[in-house]
Amino acid sequence: MGDRIERIGGRGLDEFELIARYFAPLATDAAALGLHDDAAVLRPPESREIVISCDTIVEGVHFLKDDPPETIGYKALAVNLSDLAAKGARPYVYLLALALPDEPSPSWLQAFVSGLSELQSEAGIALVGGDTTRISGPLSITITALGLVPQGHAVLRHGAKRGDRLYVTGTIGDAYLGLRALQDPELGRAWGLSEMELDFVIGRYRRPRPHSDLALVIRNFAQGAIDVSDGLVSDIGKLAQVSHVGAVIEAERVPFSPAAAKALQHDPQLLSALITAGDDYEIAVAVPASSAGTFESELKGKGTPVTMIGRLEGAVAEPRVLGPDGSDLELARTGFTHF
Amino acid sequence: MGDRIERIGGRGLDEFELIARYFAPLATDAAALGLHDDAAVLRPPESREIVISCDTIVEGVHFLKDDPPETIGYKALAVNLSDLAAKGARPYVYLLALALPDEPSPSWLQAFVSGLSELQSEAGIALVGGDTTRISGPLSITITALGLVPQGHAVLRHGAKRGDRLYVTGTIGDAYLGLRALQDPELGRAWGLSEMELDFVIGRYRRPRPHSDLALVIRNFAQGAIDVSDGLVSDIGKLAQVSHVGAVIEAERVPFSPAAAKALQHDPQLLSALITAGDDYEIAVAVPASSAGTFESELKGKGTPVTMIGRLEGAVAEPRVLGPDGSDLELARTGFTHF
Repeated sequence: MGDRIERIGGRGLDEFELIARYFAPLATDAAALGLHDDAAVLRPPESREIVISCDTIVEGVHFLKDDPPETIGYKALAVNLSDLAAKGARPYVYLLALALPDEPSPSWLQAFVSGLSELQSEAGIALVGGDTTRISGPLSITITALGLVPQGHAVLRHGAKRGDRLYVTGTIGDAYLGLRALQDPELGRAWGLSEMELDFVIGRYRRPRPHSDLALVIRNFAQGAIDVSDGLVSDIGKLAQVSHVGAVIEAERVPFSPAAAKALQHDPQLLSALITAGDDYEIAVAVPASSAGTFESELKGKGTPVTMIGRLEGAVAEPRVLGPDGSDLELARTGFTHF
Repeated sequence: MGDRIERIGGRGLDEFELIARYFAPLATDAAALGLHDDAAVLRPPESREIVISCDTIVEGVHFLKDDPPETIGYKALAVNLSDLAAKGARPYVYLLALALPDEPSPSWLQAFVSGLSELQSEAGIALVGGDTTRISGPLSITITALGLVPQGHAVLRHGAKRGDRLYVTGTIGDAYLGLRALQDPELGRAWGLSEMELDFVIGRYRRPRPHSDLALVIRNFAQGAIDVSDGLVSDIGKLAQVSHVGAVIEAERVPFSPAAAKALQHDPQLLSALITAGDDYEIAVAVPASSAGTFESELKGKGTPVTMIGRLEGAVAEPRVLGPDGSDLELARTGFTHF
């Protein structure tokens, strides 16, 4: 669909040209019909279920105006692939709806597409359709991603059980530090971070790496799993709530990167923010205690650390977060659940 | 995903509450997992292909700030169902990504949802997932709709052939008149339209009715079809272009409603706008001349007129639009293809 009410003066870039020049190279699957059509036609392999997820990222909310366009493209796809990985699904195809505030420059578009292209190659997913439109407001990108799982094998949030161990992939809180450092460059110094450490946390904010490579292990071992995007405590709370069970997180066990650990040493008050701030795009996984050992050894050599951080127990409530002495920590908030 | 960078002061409506209270009633298919998850799990019926389409509507571009929320919800889904109908697909499930400028009032949400609900009941489609986020800009709604067709039976744009007859469903140009009348109430009078006729054209702008009921006939007879959303001439041009053939439209044959015909009588210059302005959400269909008779009789009694308006012939070029004397009309533009 093109613009209806307000038109841009002069000879702009035609939506057809935009698609042919920039987006058609991403359409590497025949289902895309070369992006010549308003719809894609998919024939998913037999005995597979389709996992489908849809997330929007908006300038000023999920990324910053000055973020490089390649990281914006990368992140838009990454946040969706993270959802698929948490379901144990293999990436299949995606659709891209782009609402553009201005006519983008060729270099902006090229960079945006290169971010998408990089991640889609890594993940083995292809663009099959979408929409471009004009918006008199911030850049907004909605991606709908489809993944495949063998029938009946999708990992759902609500399958976790009392007694399960809670694991989390990667490290937590880096993206929060990256965002804060972008908003206030003084903070990096206050936390004692080196240039390299700053680059690392900013990279974690701008280019979250989805754990598509862990989908199979998650599928084989998890009774429940959730993409950690709104804050570790909040998302574990959601997992536990829909599974009708309580959750306990041991703060001492939460995995932090060397950069986050250093910041935490400079300012121990950061702990609460790191475990509630969101944008981690890690995966929290509930695994039966009986298979925890096998789960851990399956993960060895995968390149991504996965850490046991707590367990599911007790009645449904806000997750308990235990400090080093075993007493409950008071958190200012559990996560960005308000919108 | 919730809000990341800017948070709303005070105790706002939780995304969970929003989903449970307003959107869960739309999730009438088990695949939605009660909207408790970040993804839906679909098991499409065997020997079916999935047609998937994704369209965004943005305030100030595809609808007006003062449009009633129920018509905004209705239209967001309608524009996607129109794409599915043009492919000959039966509606299956959809995902909704909502970017909200402010915390919506309960009455706004209720009305918005009722518009979605009305059309999803009519069409037999169910909500299975999506996302809500905050935007510091205009309301923006992206819907991804999935439809089903028997394998190999999706109607594509590029299958039309030289010699095919061109048909269009319903009437053309009403939505343009409705939009103009909303923008400038004087125009309705200038065109001599009654209150009822004004209501009709405004309704055509705000609540386009997708032709899901024609999907089967389209699938059985069309070699190519396209949803008319960017203007009749432009969209037929796209259909012809990807089918590598030229198109001829006879202006005299283009179907107009009584209201549009009256406006046209008052201002014959409107013709060009009516056939290029878009927002019709009718379907243009290319049918082999040999089956045109059967196609027409199959459509009798369907309640939606379908009119022969031209044919596919000659080499690829901008569509020719012939006036009453058979000479080519000069159009100011062919449609809203610029974005």
